[in-house]
Amino acid sequence: MKAYKDMTKEELCAEKEALLKRFEDYKAMGLKLDMSRGKPSKEQLDISMKLLDYTDYIEDGIDLRNYGILDGIPSCKKLFADLLGVEPKNILMGPNASLSLMFDYIAQCYSHGVLGCTPWSKLPEVKFLCPVPGYDRHFTILEYFNIKMINVDMKDDGPDMDAIEELVKDESVKGMFCVPKYSNPQGITFSDEVVKRIAALKPAAEDFRVIWDNAYIIHEIYDEGDELLNIFDVLPEYGNEDMVIEVCSTSKMTFPGAGISALAASEANIADILKRLNAQTISYDKMNQHRHAEFFGDLEGMKAHMKKHAALMKPKFEMVLNHLQNELGGKGVASWIEPRGGYFISLDVMPGCAKRVGELCKEAGVTLTSVGATYPYGKDPKDSNIRIAPSLPPVNELDIASQILCVSVKLACLEKLI
Amino acid sequence: MKAYKDMTKEELCAEKEALLKRFEDYKAMGLKLDMSRGKPSKEQLDISMKLLDYTDYIEDGIDLRNYGILDGIPSCKKLFADLLGVEPKNILMGPNASLSLMFDYIAQCYSHGVLGCTPWSKLPEVKFLCPVPGYDRHFTILEYFNIKMINVDMKDDGPDMDAIEELVKDESVKGMFCVPKYSNPQGITFSDEVVKRIAALKPAAEDFRVIWDNAYIIHEIYDEGDELLNIFDVLPEYGNEDMVIEVCSTSKMTFPGAGISALAASEANIADILKRLNAQTISYDKMNQHRHAEFFGDLEGMKAHMKKHAALMKPKFEMVLNHLQNELGGKGVASWIEPRGGYFISLDVMPGCAKRVGELCKEAGVTLTSVGATYPYGKDPKDSNIRIAPSLPPVNELDIASQILCVSVKLACLEKLI
Repeated sequence: MKAYKDMTKEELCAEKEALLKRFEDYKAMGLKLDMSRGKPSKEQLDISMKLLDYTDYIEDGIDLRNYGILDGIPSCKKLFADLLGVEPKNILMGPNASLSLMFDYIAQCYSHGVLGCTPWSKLPEVKFLCPVPGYDRHFTILEYFNIKMINVDMKDDGPDMDAIEELVKDESVKGMFCVPKYSNPQGITFSDEVVKRIAALKPAAEDFRVIWDNAYIIHEIYDEGDELLNIFDVLPEYGNEDMVIEVCSTSKMTFPGAGISALAASEANIADILKRLNAQTISYDKMNQHRHAEFFGDLEGMKAHMKKHAALMKPKFEMVLNHLQNELGGKGVASWIEPRGGYFISLDVMPGCAKRVGELCKEAGVTLTSVGATYPYGKDPKDSNIRIAPSLPPVNELDIASQILCVSVKLACLEKLI
Repeated sequence: MKAYKDMTKEELCAEKEALLKRFEDYKAMGLKLDMSRGKPSKEQLDISMKLLDYTDYIEDGIDLRNYGILDGIPSCKKLFADLLGVEPKNILMGPNASLSLMFDYIAQCYSHGVLGCTPWSKLPEVKFLCPVPGYDRHFTILEYFNIKMINVDMKDDGPDMDAIEELVKDESVKGMFCVPKYSNPQGITFSDEVVKRIAALKPAAEDFRVIWDNAYIIHEIYDEGDELLNIFDVLPEYGNEDMVIEVCSTSKMTFPGAGISALAASEANIADILKRLNAQTISYDKMNQHRHAEFFGDLEGMKAHMKKHAALMKPKFEMVLNHLQNELGGKGVASWIEPRGGYFISLDVMPGCAKRVGELCKEAGVTLTSVGATYPYGKDPKDSNIRIAPSLPPVNELDIASQILCVSVKLACLEKLI
């Protein structure tokens, strides 16, 4: 395995020649493969179908088919309190996706402000910190509300805390989005030290809020998953109980778009959110909440269910990672992290090559997540990051798609090098 | 039957004496009856349980259990297009309640403005017209966004259009909430003339919006229901296609809080809403959409289902109306309308007596909708209107509750008269 930088021009040209031949062969196959979004596979959806079998919708004598119970049914609040390591009084059950919980919370900060502070819409400028690469839909929310996004680099154990501690001295910096476990797209779990430093932040803005999007909270791939420190256990030490809004959902446990979501926050924040919610709805879908509570039973049941997902996900992650290792290892043109959970593999290619990789893949029939999407405003300043979503395609398709990706990476780099 | 105004003081005192005796008898029964909210009864919920039987979630080859389809599944868009008399391209499927559709739309006007107009949050004052009595949750939305509410009286055939045509000359008047069929709480269906005059409005504000909350669109009680002119058929005559946002839901067809909702609007408005929706969610619950489409089949199926509701509602409405007629008819202390559908009976008692009626009912164990709730800011200027919600209690309870209500009305009026 020789790194490209150590090759002569002739060697590089020969390599390119050979790769072009492979590339043409793939193209000739007329494939249509999709590695673009973190969608569960059909098999993953099938394992939750028992969820639909429940027909008794009475809980504690209350008919859950009727109006009422704004904050969620007790059994669900208990389940998610256990999952998130908080008390039920700190839980609000949400709609069919945590994305809406996040959007609505930012909308609330924008129109009404945080706990009596000036609404963000009334301020000349509002900024948010965005660990990058990150989740495009976080960025979409911020862009919708015209909140200026500031990139903060991700390190091996979470976002660059030195940078963050400096940036929060600016009072117009009002918050930060995080995916603290199996981050999207890198699969990085924040270290205890990073979680503690976040919990200990002393932002200039009183209404600074960390949106703790724990989307992959128990989405392990291996028996031994990463451990994330519970930030709500640490916040009180620094008097920062109100600083974090945590969300999660069953989108990738049961059904995407037909699951349930939950929000965890201090009692003050919950009360603040309920003021809005009281105008926005009478309740979210309690029948779906009940189905989920019955289906999982308890946290152990939820974890047991997630092992079934892990069994389906593991061969797919390994398929992609093996190809990356075999084809790109030692070439010095790309780097990646081997995640132990979550939904993505993040691939960093030679700067200035990512867009070209996307084009080549497309030409050969493989759709990747829009290159650049993992950065605010869709602009990867280094044009380097590619998000791979291995969950949806069958393993045999993933086999080909990964090869095409690897060949495209090498071709794009060679085009640059030669 | 002698009107109170024609009675001598002695006759009034004797009447009061007799009523107080009845009142004490009711109190001694220690009842706990609820006529406060428009909740369907258990029997009404039971008739939709087949909705939960569907297990096949593939539609047009697409797995509805997975992510995607922001605007709603085609079968549901078709069904609601037929119901609302528009094209599927004018339909957006919503979340579990149309209340959220309305809240989110107002929120969007507030933060981002209507079709390029100045966001309402940036204006010194925004006003909305509120036909009164009306639906308290409309008022709650407006109050949340600090939109000033202006009362417009309801007449027999809809809101006072002379007043509205005058009020919309004020550019700060940005919209109006309407329940055009079987209005909440009066059960009035807007006449063709009223619908046409609304469609023909020439508001000073370019971004004036009528929120057409068609909550009881096919919620008839009798075989012959009221006919509401389809406002979308009339709007083009006046070039006002963009002025109306219509919503409806299955909350009172299948399950409150676990149904589906729909919004109908011009293509320009739909596109404007989708811009927000694209940041707010990936899709609403398509599995629930599919269940509903399968359960109803088509508009005829939906109407057939609603006849089952009517059969359960009719005896309850008649029970209340009979008591009102027998006990209050000819007394000159109260008036009411006999609705042909919807969820409520609106009772207007002698001015200055409604709150007292609420107190007396409570004392005797009957909970009414908070008196005043049918007016903005909870303030009925005449203290006259009482909303009766007959759907939830069993007929035998409704029998007693109606008697208690009638006795309380008469007592409250006698207290005033003597």
